[in-house]
Amino acid sequence: MNPDSLQDLIRAAVAFRDQRDWAQFHNPKELAISLAVESAELLQIMQWYKGEELQRVVTEKHAHLKDELADVLFSVLLLADELKIDLGPAFLEKLAKTGAKYPVGKSKGSPKKYTEL
Amino acid sequence: MNPDSLQDLIRAAVAFRDQRDWAQFHNPKELAISLAVESAELLQIMQWYKGEELQRVVTEKHAHLKDELADVLFSVLLLADELKIDLGPAFLEKLAKTGAKYPVGKSKGSPKKYTEL
Amino acid sequence: MNPDSLQDLIRAAVAFRDQRDWAQFHNPKELAISLAVESAELLQIMQWYKGEELQRVVTEKHAHLKDELADVLFSVLLLADELKIDLGPAFLEKLAKTGAKYPVGKSKGSPKKYTEL
Amino acid sequence: MNPDSLQDLIRAAVAFRDQRDWAQFHNPKELAISLAVESAELLQIMQWYKGEELQRVVTEKHAHLKDELADVLFSVLLLADELKIDLGPAFLEKLAKTGAKYPVGKSKGSPKKYTEL
Repeated sequence: MNPDSLQDLIRAAVAFRDQRDWAQFHNPKELAISLAVESAELLQIMQWYKGEELQRVVTEKHAHLKDELADVLFSVLLLADELKIDLGPAFLEKLAKTGAKYPVGKSKGSPKKYTEL
Repeated sequence: MNPDSLQDLIRAAVAFRDQRDWAQFHNPKELAISLAVESAELLQIMQWYKGEELQRVVTEKHAHLKDELADVLFSVLLLADELKIDLGPAFLEKLAKTGAKYPVGKSKGSPKKYTEL
Repeated sequence: MNPDSLQDLIRAAVAFRDQRDWAQFHNPKELAISLAVESAELLQIMQWYKGEELQRVVTEKHAHLKDELADVLFSVLLLADELKIDLGPAFLEKLAKTGAKYPVGKSKGSPKKYTEL
Repeated sequence: MNPDSLQDLIRAAVAFRDQRDWAQFHNPKELAISLAVESAELLQIMQWYKGEELQRVVTEKHAHLKDELADVLFSVLLLADELKIDLGPAFLEKLAKTGAKYPVGKSKGSPKKYTEL
């Protein structure tokens, strides 16, 4: 088991699910709900904070943020398995597409959406 | 570059960001907002559908689902970099914790939250 | 105070906020974060459930659902105040716009997005 | 029809739904998904912006923000109808509960969650 390997992590997530017989609850829609719920839990930790207070919260709650990010990744890995998406290559392909929408010359230093560049 | 390596994908995401000078917009809170927004876009594809219609949509929109999942992963990777979280080990640690909350004997075949098992 | 009046409810929400000196945290972006977080909490209650199990959960957790929906409305009311949006008329205008995108003849009995009708 | 009356707005939302025979898609879980998706669309408008840039976006995109907030309210109204929640009183009850969790003396000027006050 190599913890840096997406394929190995997916296998670990799937084994965890199957030991609990949870595949019956995990269609892609339910997993996407789970992803949205876990993402909101991550965001909730930093809600209302800004500036120095935000930095303090990020430091103090680091373990909590880590756990929530891991929960998000759990949903991502199960979705990749369920949808038979080869996650690494899919990511690199999308990065190339996004790069074409946001060429360096136009998007550098700008927070604008590509439709407004 | 090994597309199965989380570390390599993080390096690709960070290089993409830095070419565009986007680190200035990417504090952990903004990345968590991005994660929530991208997760909702993934969910939106399957909104209102169930049963056979849902299966049809998942098949027909496979490329779109793949792109949105890749966008979600982009935010996950940048968050891991920003928060200095070693993603693979963090995931495995959290899986062990979740396993303790959901022991196989009690959670098998149940959709209940651990607080209700 | 008329509990059926949006204007009165907005006044109640704003008074609650001002007694606690919370306006300083409540710019439109923070309120939109809050809305997303509270919406996810509502959704979380029904996560993983379907069919009869879902109906049972909706019945058993009715008080919890009510509280979360009220929290969502709190963010909606404060956003309307902050953005100086006249909520009732804004809703009716948008309903008319949505009606034009989803004419009865084309959308009746269909879960499709207007771009696919 | 009084645009300030929640009951009247709910009737308008329900009539809109029934003309299109959409009740079949609208169980509480689907409406909660819709609420999460619409909330994320509202948040997305302000994504990546802060300070003066954020203020400029809020001004320039006011019509868009208004439309998204109206979409959020649509889901809230239909959820209230579906769950038979009397929305105004439910809001005031929850405000009282939240007030007890966040007494003025302890919460004034603080962004902290009640569990940390």
